[in-house]
Amino acid sequence: MITGKNYIGSQLKAGGTKTVKTFNPQLNIENPWVFTEATTEEIEEAVALANQAFTSYKKCSGLEKAQFLNAIADEILALGDELLVQYCSESGFPRGRAEGERGRMIGQLRSFAVMLTEGSWVQATIDTAIPDRQPAPKEDLRKMLVPLGPIVVFGSSNFPFAFSTAGGDTASALASGCPVIVKSHSMHIGTGEMVASAIIKAAQKTNMPEGVFSNLVGGGRTLGTSLVKHPLVKGVGFTGSISGGRALCDLAAQRPEPIPVFAEMGSVNPVVLLPEALKVNSQKWAAAYAGSITLGAGQFCTNPGLLLAVKGAELNDFETELTTAIEKIEPLCMLHSTMQADFEKGIAEKESQKGVSKVAQFKGEVLPNYGRQTILKVSGEEFLKNESLSHEVFGPFSILVECEDEVQLIQIINKLDGQLTGTIISEEKELQKHQAVIFALQNRVGRLIFNGVPTGVEVCASMLHGGPYPASSDSRFTAVGTHAVYRWVRPLSYQNWPDDLLPAELQNNNPLQISRTVNNKLTLAGCD
Amino acid sequence: MITGKNYIGSQLKAGGTKTVKTFNPQLNIENPWVFTEATTEEIEEAVALANQAFTSYKKCSGLEKAQFLNAIADEILALGDELLVQYCSESGFPRGRAEGERGRMIGQLRSFAVMLTEGSWVQATIDTAIPDRQPAPKEDLRKMLVPLGPIVVFGSSNFPFAFSTAGGDTASALASGCPVIVKSHSMHIGTGEMVASAIIKAAQKTNMPEGVFSNLVGGGRTLGTSLVKHPLVKGVGFTGSISGGRALCDLAAQRPEPIPVFAEMGSVNPVVLLPEALKVNSQKWAAAYAGSITLGAGQFCTNPGLLLAVKGAELNDFETELTTAIEKIEPLCMLHSTMQADFEKGIAEKESQKGVSKVAQFKGEVLPNYGRQTILKVSGEEFLKNESLSHEVFGPFSILVECEDEVQLIQIINKLDGQLTGTIISEEKELQKHQAVIFALQNRVGRLIFNGVPTGVEVCASMLHGGPYPASSDSRFTAVGTHAVYRWVRPLSYQNWPDDLLPAELQNNNPLQISRTVNNKLTLAGCD
Repeated sequence: MITGKNYIGSQLKAGGTKTVKTFNPQLNIENPWVFTEATTEEIEEAVALANQAFTSYKKCSGLEKAQFLNAIADEILALGDELLVQYCSESGFPRGRAEGERGRMIGQLRSFAVMLTEGSWVQATIDTAIPDRQPAPKEDLRKMLVPLGPIVVFGSSNFPFAFSTAGGDTASALASGCPVIVKSHSMHIGTGEMVASAIIKAAQKTNMPEGVFSNLVGGGRTLGTSLVKHPLVKGVGFTGSISGGRALCDLAAQRPEPIPVFAEMGSVNPVVLLPEALKVNSQKWAAAYAGSITLGAGQFCTNPGLLLAVKGAELNDFETELTTAIEKIEPLCMLHSTMQADFEKGIAEKESQKGVSKVAQFKGEVLPNYGRQTILKVSGEEFLKNESLSHEVFGPFSILVECEDEVQLIQIINKLDGQLTGTIISEEKELQKHQAVIFALQNRVGRLIFNGVPTGVEVCASMLHGGPYPASSDSRFTAVGTHAVYRWVRPLSYQNWPDDLLPAELQNNNPLQISRTVNNKLTLAGCD
Repeated sequence: MITGKNYIGSQLKAGGTKTVKTFNPQLNIENPWVFTEATTEEIEEAVALANQAFTSYKKCSGLEKAQFLNAIADEILALGDELLVQYCSESGFPRGRAEGERGRMIGQLRSFAVMLTEGSWVQATIDTAIPDRQPAPKEDLRKMLVPLGPIVVFGSSNFPFAFSTAGGDTASALASGCPVIVKSHSMHIGTGEMVASAIIKAAQKTNMPEGVFSNLVGGGRTLGTSLVKHPLVKGVGFTGSISGGRALCDLAAQRPEPIPVFAEMGSVNPVVLLPEALKVNSQKWAAAYAGSITLGAGQFCTNPGLLLAVKGAELNDFETELTTAIEKIEPLCMLHSTMQADFEKGIAEKESQKGVSKVAQFKGEVLPNYGRQTILKVSGEEFLKNESLSHEVFGPFSILVECEDEVQLIQIINKLDGQLTGTIISEEKELQKHQAVIFALQNRVGRLIFNGVPTGVEVCASMLHGGPYPASSDSRFTAVGTHAVYRWVRPLSYQNWPDDLLPAELQNNNPLQISRTVNNKLTLAGCD
C-alpha cells in the first residue's frame, strides 16, 4: 500500500532522485519502504494548487467543510489495522497507544466538524446603521472571520497521528477554510502517506477542490525552508524543538511579507509540591508522577520535567516514594535511536553539572532504543545559578529542585522560561497561604493544574495548549481544542454591503441561526 | 503648564541633556517649549515600574479598570480649551478637528469602559468534569483571557489624540490589564505631555498602581529601540510608516523572546468604480471622493489613494467632475514642513514615471506647509509594469488607473499589497456581474466598503482596522474598536482549580453575570 511518493493534490508524484527511509525502533532496523523527496517543481506545484484551491475552498459552507472533515475521519478508520501496524513500525509505540492516538485524531476531526456545523465560531459581529446620527450618520458594519490562505503544517515526531498529517494543525486549518500542505515528519513517512491517502479520498468524495491538501516528503531542511519562504503560503503550524521552531519563526519574520507561525516548542512543565500535600499524600503523588514522567516514554510536550519543593521531611519522604515507584516501572521504547541517544546525552550533561545528583533510575536491563527513566536532584541555589538545568530533556526524565524556602521557590519560577503548563500539588486549605506561588506560576504558563498531572491534554474549547515563549511562539493562541482554528483566520469587515451579497453568516435574517453580536448584544435573532 | 519632562510613572523627570522642540506648521515656526529626552536610566525605571505595576494591575477587576478609563476621559476633558490650543499649535489642524478628535479619544476610552463593565470580553470558556468518563475521566477545564504584560505604544503623527498618548492602543492595552509606556510622537510632545498628565491624575484618583502608565520623550530611534528590545516589555502598538513599523517588527522578532507587534502601516485603499455607478452618479461620486481625498489634508490611513476603473465615456465624465471638485477645494495645512516636503517629493516621483499624467491639482496660491491636492492618471498596463506606482503618497493625493478591461482590473487588484480597505462604487444591480472583482478585493483588504468612502473609521465592535501585510503587521487583529483589546491578551486555562480561588469570571455561580461558553453552549447560567 505504501507507494513512497508525494501527494501533489490528488496526484502521486516522485520525480526526484533523493530518497529516505524510516526506522523501526522496536526491531532496531531500517524499515523496508523507500520514500522519494519532493522536487523543487513538485513543491512549487503543490503550493500553486493550494493557492488555486483557496479561491473555491474558502467559499465552502460550514456544512461542506464539516462533511469533508468527517469523511477524513471515516477514511482513516477505513484503513483499519494496516494503519495501526504501520504506525507502530515507525514509532516504536505499542498497539494500545496507536489505537488511543487514532481515537484522538478522529475525535479532533469530528470536533471541528461539530464546530463548523453549529457555525457560531466565525464570531459574527454586526453594528447596524444609524442614518440620522449627529454629527455624522453611522454606517452599517458587519464583521466575521475569514481564512488566511494556504497553510503549511510540519508533522511532529511524537504524535504521528494527533499532531501530524491529519492532526490538530491540519484539522483546524481545513476547518478555517485554508488549504493545507503537510511536510511529513521524517520518522513516520509511511504512516503519513497512508493518512494522506485517506484525506485525498475524502476530498474527492466530498467534492473538495483539487489541491486543498498535499503531502510532501523531505529529508533535510530544504523542503521546510522552501515552503515557509513561499510567497503564496500564508501561515505555518509546527510542533517540535525550540531550535527548529525558532528557525521557522525567523524565516517567516524575514519574508518580504511576514506570516504568522504557530510553533509549539519546548516545555519542562514545572510542578510545585506544597508541604501539606506531601505530608498527607506523598505516596499517591509519587505514584502519579512516576506514571506521568514515564508515560509514552516521557515523549510528551507536557511531560513534568521539573519538580519544585521546599526542603524538609515531607520532601524526603516523597523522594523515597518516587524512587521506589520509578524503579519499578518497565521502560518503554523511544521514537528513534537518535532520540534515545539524545536522551542519554541530555541526562549525562545535566548529571555533570555542579551540585546535581541522581535520585532514581531504572536499574534493570533494557532493549536497544528503550529509555531508562531517570530523576536527578539539585538545590535551589545551584539551579538558580545554572540556567542549563532548566532546559528540557526529551524523554522520561525529571529534575527535582530542593528549594531553601518559598522565597527561593518563587525566585526560581520567576526566572523560568514560558511553559505550557504549571502544576500545584496542594491541600486545599494550604493553598490560600501560597497565593504568591500561584501568581508567579500563572505568569509563566498557558495552563494551571491543581492536584493532577500535566500529561493528558483534553481536546475541548477550554483547553489552552500553548504558553509564553518558548512554550509556543505566540501565547495568544492554542494548538489543541476547537479554538486552534483562530490561528488561521482574520476578521473581515463589510461596510454598507447589500444583504444578498453578504456571506450567510452576516445576513439580516441570520439564515444559519448562529450566535452573533448585534449592536453589542449576543443574540440568535435577525437584524435590519 | 508644559514642563518638558518625562512621566516616569507619576514622577516628572528630566535628568537628560538632549532636548527637542516641536513645530507649528500653521505659523511655520518652532514652538517655544523645550522637551528633554528620556535618559537610559529613566527608560529603565519606567519599564521596571510598569513591570512592578503589572503584578497588581492585572488583578484589578473590570469595574476598577473601567473607573480608571472613565477617569482618564474626565481628566482630559478637564484640561479644557488649553489642550485644544496645544493640539492645534503642534499639528496644524483646525479647531474643529481638535474637538472632533478629542471626542473620538474620549469615546474610545468610554467604549472600553463599557466593555469592561459588561465583562464578557474575556471569553470565559468552561468544560466541566466528567469523572466517570471512559476510558479516562474528563477533568474540569476553564479558560479566560489574561493580559500579556507591559506594552509599549508609539504615538502616531496624524492622530495626536485618537492614536497617541491616550488613543486606541493605550486605551485597549489598559483595558486588557497591561501597563503602558508611551513613546510620545515627536511632532506633538506638548499635547502628549498634557494628555499624560490627565492619565496620571486619573490613575492616582482611582488608586491604580504606580507605573501603570509612563510617557517618554525621545528624538531619534534610541528610545523606541530600547523599549522594544527590553526583556520586560511584552508587546508593541504602532501607527505609522511601513519602514518604521517593519523596523520594529524585525527588532521584536529578533529578541531572545520575540514579542507581538501590532503595526498599522501603509495603505492606498483601492476604490473600484464600476461603470453603471459612474453613468448614473458620476457627479455625486466625484464630489464624495474629492472630499475624502482632501479630508484632514489627506493625512488618514484610509485615504483613498488609488482609484481603479475600466476606461470609457463614464470614466471620462467622472474624471472631469473630479477635476472640477478637486480644484475648488481649499488646501489645508499639513502636520509638519517635512511632511509637506515628502508629499511634494512623492508626487514629483510618481509624475516622473512613464505614462503618468496630471489630472487635477489645486491651482491657487497656498501658504507654507499647505498640501496642494493632486490627482494623477496612468493606464492599467503601465501601472502593472511599475510597482512603485502602487506605493502610498501621504497627503491629499490619489492616482486614477484607467484599466483596459475587467480582466486587467482584477489583475491589478491581485497584485496589490495588503490594504486596510477596499471600496466598490456600484449600482446594486450590476454588482452580481462583478463578483470576481469583489472576491479579488476581499483577499487584499481588512474592510470592504460598498458605495461610500474609506475615510471615517467607526469605533465599534464590528470595525476591522488592519489588514493583510503591510496594511498591518498581523491581519488577525484590529487597531480600532473594542476588539483591539485582543492584541494584548492571551488565554489561560485552569484545570481542576478550586472554585473559590478561580477568578470571578470562571467561578461556578457566574458572579459577574457574563456570557460564558459552558460545555459548548453560550449561557449566563452558573455551572458546577
